[in-house]
Order: sequence, then structure tokens, then C-alpha cells
Amino acid sequence: MQDEFPRYRCKEWDAEDPLADLRDRFVIADDQLIYLDGNSLGRLPAATPEHLARLVRDGWGERLVRGWPTWIEWAGRIGDRIAAHAVGARPGEVAVSDSTSVNLYKLAAAALDANPGRRTVLVDAEDFPTDRYVLQGLAEARGLTLTMLPSDLDEGLDPRTLIDALTEDVALVVLSAVSYRCGALLDMAAVNAAAREVGAYVLWDLSHAVGSVPIELTASGADLAVGCTYKYLNGGPGAPAFLYVRRELQQRLRQPIQGWFGQRDQFAMGPHYEPVPTLDRFQVGTPPILGMAALDPALDVLAEAGVDRVRAKGVRLGELIVDLADAWLTPYGFTVASPRDPARRGSHVSLHHPEALRISRALAEAGVVGDYRAPDRLRLGPAPLYTRFVDVWDAMDRLRDIVERRAYEQVPGEPSRVT
Amino acid sequence: MQDEFPRYRCKEWDAEDPLADLRDRFVIADDQLIYLDGNSLGRLPAATPEHLARLVRDGWGERLVRGWPTWIEWAGRIGDRIAAHAVGARPGEVAVSDSTSVNLYKLAAAALDANPGRRTVLVDAEDFPTDRYVLQGLAEARGLTLTMLPSDLDEGLDPRTLIDALTEDVALVVLSAVSYRCGALLDMAAVNAAAREVGAYVLWDLSHAVGSVPIELTASGADLAVGCTYKYLNGGPGAPAFLYVRRELQQRLRQPIQGWFGQRDQFAMGPHYEPVPTLDRFQVGTPPILGMAALDPALDVLAEAGVDRVRAKGVRLGELIVDLADAWLTPYGFTVASPRDPARRGSHVSLHHPEALRISRALAEAGVVGDYRAPDRLRLGPAPLYTRFVDVWDAMDRLRDIVERRAYEQVPGEPSRVT
Repeated sequence: MQDEFPRYRCKEWDAEDPLADLRDRFVIADDQLIYLDGNSLGRLPAATPEHLARLVRDGWGERLVRGWPTWIEWAGRIGDRIAAHAVGARPGEVAVSDSTSVNLYKLAAAALDANPGRRTVLVDAEDFPTDRYVLQGLAEARGLTLTMLPSDLDEGLDPRTLIDALTEDVALVVLSAVSYRCGALLDMAAVNAAAREVGAYVLWDLSHAVGSVPIELTASGADLAVGCTYKYLNGGPGAPAFLYVRRELQQRLRQPIQGWFGQRDQFAMGPHYEPVPTLDRFQVGTPPILGMAALDPALDVLAEAGVDRVRAKGVRLGELIVDLADAWLTPYGFTVASPRDPARRGSHVSLHHPEALRISRALAEAGVVGDYRAPDRLRLGPAPLYTRFVDVWDAMDRLRDIVERRAYEQVPGEPSRVT
Repeated sequence: MQDEFPRYRCKEWDAEDPLADLRDRFVIADDQLIYLDGNSLGRLPAATPEHLARLVRDGWGERLVRGWPTWIEWAGRIGDRIAAHAVGARPGEVAVSDSTSVNLYKLAAAALDANPGRRTVLVDAEDFPTDRYVLQGLAEARGLTLTMLPSDLDEGLDPRTLIDALTEDVALVVLSAVSYRCGALLDMAAVNAAAREVGAYVLWDLSHAVGSVPIELTASGADLAVGCTYKYLNGGPGAPAFLYVRRELQQRLRQPIQGWFGQRDQFAMGPHYEPVPTLDRFQVGTPPILGMAALDPALDVLAEAGVDRVRAKGVRLGELIVDLADAWLTPYGFTVASPRDPARRGSHVSLHHPEALRISRALAEAGVVGDYRAPDRLRLGPAPLYTRFVDVWDAMDRLRDIVERRAYEQVPGEPSRVT
């Protein structure tokens, strides 16, 4: 079998890869470690430590409070960079703010309040947990029905399921552009058009898509979106999230957390809340400057690569995982748990195995970091900016070795708090 | 006049100051700059740059996603440190999370939902803007009455005004332990007791108090609190905030933003939100690890100083400002705009002058950073951990010089977006 996919072929692909040089733009602390979890926490860009050190030393340490006239613009300035380089939005449509979950709450609440009388919210039943939980809370508080659209664990949501559920009673649809578990990629423009036809808002969670697949929020007619910056955007652990509100909607929507950073003439500190007419109305409290600062060097690398080239490489990395899984792992009870059509798949691939939790741990012990997702999926996310084809080959080779030797049987199978 | 308060006396006080050595634990980039705005953004602790660099390099860069089993405990671990060293709470009662505004929203909403049938929310009419705005939003959404308690700009809220307003219809009282403008310090135990008598919850905003005055949340019978870590706690620009929920209340309260970090058995990623029985239910999204990391070295310094010694020095620094203002500035139209009784005042002092905005700018040009607060207050916050008595003397001397020469008349008086 191995002969069909010789390792030297991957070496050749790496040699020809137009993004190959960008690997040096990241810290590779341990060259023996194969890191296929950039979809959970992206690697550290090499420029980030000094960039952060400078902010801490010259900004906080020296400018002190006098740094704020600069920092106060960062939510919008860095948002505009994300808009330009990652999500296809116009200036003034993206802001860095809070966490993905808090942003989802703000925008979902704003959309529901702007669509009164409608009683239904739609969400993918297999959507990322925080999205479903946040919506459950909002729906319960408002007496609305949250409909969980049945979705295939391996294939994602069938668009027809959504179309069938879209009625004039739907206020809001929340979907992930790329599914966290199986990586299914939705046709955003088609969903936006169908929802608009019945007058429903669509709120996209871009967390598992942004920085790995081209997103065109403006061109696809998207209303609202949120996303995370610590995965393919390489912003660091718990980096601040972003939100997008279509320009034409900004004045019509009001979010429920009326903080002073959303207030018109903020430092007048007047008696009554009156939201800024622009996107700033979706800000709440003092923005996290340290976390934001790490986004600049990370976006520099993405901008240089260009998300189209990232995507092209991501497709090939994914195909390699699928091909090697078919060839090497099927005999050991693995099945591909992601869409097989690369046009319908983001940059990670899930593999199903009844012992996925133990196997993912044995794989980590063998120097390959992927991750496990309930109920029984091994998820491999080869971030194109720093993952080589040969890394994928080696990872799959070690995986094959583990299941061949049943080495995972020695590994504990209890769930941990953090997997 | 000057003879009454000779500068050498301040030098003597500094020489005897038991906290004097702690100034070296902070980065003093420019020894000529007098920084009296630690109540807005605290100085950079000297240990912080290397501490952050190590987290970035060894944590993010090397441990990568495998850092999470450690990081996921930080919200509670660092919360417990704040509890022990700054706010007098028990383990498991304080967590680092989100921004102060978002935390205020979460806890206020939780308290209102736990006190149904009552129609009134009380807030100090002169409370920090974000607190008032957040409550306005919550009250409007629930059809409740938000009563703005009249409060003196210079003296703060008269406790009798609060007592008179406390009826069986009050669901929630929101107050700042130390007023952001005038620095008035409230008797928390008395307020908590009075509110409990009528069955109202009290939510304290500790932002302008924490790290500068001793707070005893448990002993004072406090229900709920939020606070910021970038002022006297020296956590850095936009550092993550904290929240406190009295242990006995935790299971009774549910907050509205149902994120996955509040979910029981989080990584099972189950279908329905079921909040953790502990304080973790007040968490929402992925916590900001970079921002949190900066809190450890900052808390080390506070722990070493001890908040009682910080307070003792803070009182003396405040007294010095008041005494010098009386002696030197009264002839030029200044009045003290803070309580004169040091037992009723936090660590900052406000001075009233019709030209306060221009004067604060002229003062900055003269190398003294204080700040301006609408409508016409100059606010001076001599953070005790790194501010010397001689710094206050020099600042007041320069201030006197500016008003003596009317130098502020050359300075623009238009409001800026950031003051």
C-alpha cells in the first residue's frame, strides 16, 4: 500500500509549494512534533513575541494611559484588516471584540429584537456547542422556539433541510460556515439568499473557516457573522473574537449589552445610553489590548499568503489525509467522517473510529497532535500556512502504526476536562 | 505658603515609607514623568514583560494546544488570588472573565431573574457610565424602573438617600465601592445589610477600589461584585475583568449568556445547556490567556505590599493632595471635589475648576499625567505602590505654576474622543 503514496512525493510537493517559505514565519519549537491542531489553536507567528514585547514595553510601560488614543482605534483598525484579508467585508463592517460566544449573543439578540413577531430560530443540531447553548438561552428568555435542524455527523447540514424549515416565522438562522466536527463547508450565498426570501436574518459563525477558506461576506449578501482569531488566524490562546454587521443593517440593530464603548460621545459620560450610529455600537467594554496586539503580526502572514493560496493548499492537504486514510486505515476500522468532495469541506478532516479518544492520545504520545471530538472522531487540521505535505504523510504513517500495533489499548479512555 | 509644606518633608516621608522599595518593582521608563493616573491605567510591573514573554514562547509557542489543561484553570486560580489578596472573598467565589461591562450585565441579569416580581433597580445617578447604560438596557428589556439615586458630584451618594429608596419592590442595587469621579468610598457592610433587609441584591462595582482600599466581600455580606484589573491591579490596558458571586448564591443564579465555558461536562458537547453548579457557570467563552497571564506578576506585588499598607499610604497621599490644594490652589479657583474625610475617600482625589479640561492638558505638557472627568474635574490618582510623596508635591507645584501663569489658556479646550 505504502508504495502507492511514497513519502518522497510529499517532499516534492513541499519543494514546489508556493507557501513553503511561510513555515519559517512561525515558531517551530520542536521540529519532531507534527502539529495538526491549528484548527484549535494556531501556531505562534515568529514576529509575535517581539511585537508583543514592544507593545508592553513602549506602549503600556512608557506611553501608559497616553497610549489610549492609539489603542481605542484598534477594534476597528484590526477589524478592517480581517475584513480585507480574511472575510471579504467592507471597511467599517468588522470589529474585534469580546469572545465569539459573547459576540454571538449580542448579534443574535439584536437580530431577534429587529425581527419581532416571528417565533422561530433555526440552528444546526450539530453546530458548535456554544452557539446552540447561547441560542437556547435567548430563545427561552423570549419564549421562542429553537429548532435544531437534523444534520449528518459526517456530511454536515443538507441545505434542503434548511430550505424546508425556512418559513415566514423564522426570525434568525445561525450556522457555521465550516462545521467544527466534520468540516462541512456551506454555500453561504445560497443560504443568505434563501433566508432573505423569507425575511430571516442569518448569523454566521466563521470560527472554523476564517483564515483557511475564502469568505465573501459582502458578495454573498451576509447579514451578520462572528468568528474566532485563535485558530487559523493564529492570534494566540483565547485571542479576542470579531464580529461583522452588514453596513446597511448597523443602524437598525441594537445589541443588549449597552456598554460605554458603544455609547455616542463616550467620554462625555452623559446620563442616557445612545448607541453610536456605526459598528462601534456593538462594542461593550474596554477592549483587550494585549490580545489584540497579537493579531497584527498574525494577519501580516495571512495577507502575504493570500487566502486563495491558503485554500488551494488546504484542499490538497485534506485530499492527502482522505487518500491515505482510505488506503491505510480502512482495514483497521476507520472511516472518513467528513465530506469527500473537497469543495464541500474546510481545512480539517475527521476520521471515525470507535476508539478515537484513545487513538488521539496514543497519537499525541507518538508526537502527532490532532484532537478528539465527541462522540468518536479524530480530527486532523493541517493548517496550510505551516503544515507540510510530508507532515501529513508522517502523521498518517504513525497513525497507521498505532492501529496496526493496537498501541492505543494501553492508553486511558476516560474523558478529561480538556481534550 | 510653600514653606508650610516643604519638599524635603516629602523626601523624608518617602525615606520612611515601608512601601518605597516596591517602586522598583515597576517599570519607570521616564523618571521625569509624574504619573497620577494609576486609577485609569496602572503602571507596568517590572516582572511582567519576561513573564508574558515566557508564556508566549514556552506556552503558546511550545506547548501549543497542550497548554490548555493548565490555562483552563486560570480563571479560577487567578480569581482565587484576587479573592485572597484584594477583595476578601473565599476560594471559588472570584473568577477572571470578560470585561467589567459584560460581567456587570451577566450578574445584574442573573440577579433580576432571581428576584422576579420586583419592579425597581437602583443605581447611583453619578455612577460610572457603563454601569448606568448596562442597567438601562436590562431595565428597558424587562419593563423595570431604573431609579437614578441623586448623588452629590463631590461627596458621592448619601447612604440615607439609598435607605429611603430601599423598598420591597427593589430587586437590585448597583453601586461603586469607590466613585469614579470624586472617589467617595461607601460603607459596603451597611449597604449590604440594608438591602438584605428588604430582599434586594447588591451588585458592587469595585473597579476604582480594588487594589487600593481593603475590601471584605465575605465579611461585609456582599452578594455580587465585578471589577477591573487594569487600574490599581496593574494588569495592563484592557486586562480581563473579574466577577464575584457569594458561594451560597451560585447555584441559585443563572446568567443569560449561556456559553460553553459555563456548561457542565463542557467537552462532552452535549445537546442541552446545563450550567456548572459552581462559579464557572458565570464564564462564557474561551478565556483570554495573554491578558490573564499579566495578572500574576501584578498580584505578586500587591500580595507583597498587603492592601492594608497600600491603603495607609494611599490615605496619606490623598491628604497631601487635599492639603496642598487648600494651601496653594484655592486662590486660583480650585475647590476640592472629593470627600474631605479620608475614611470616606478612595485613592484618588478630584479637584474642581471651570477650566479643568485645559488645565489637565497643560499639566500633561508639564510632565504630570492626571486626567479629566466631565464636567469640570481634574482627577489625581497617586497609586500607592509606585507613587512617592515627592511626586505629589512636584505635581501640585507644577499645577500651581500653570494656574499662576494661566498657562492653560494656550491649550485647546475642545473635547477629544479619549480624555
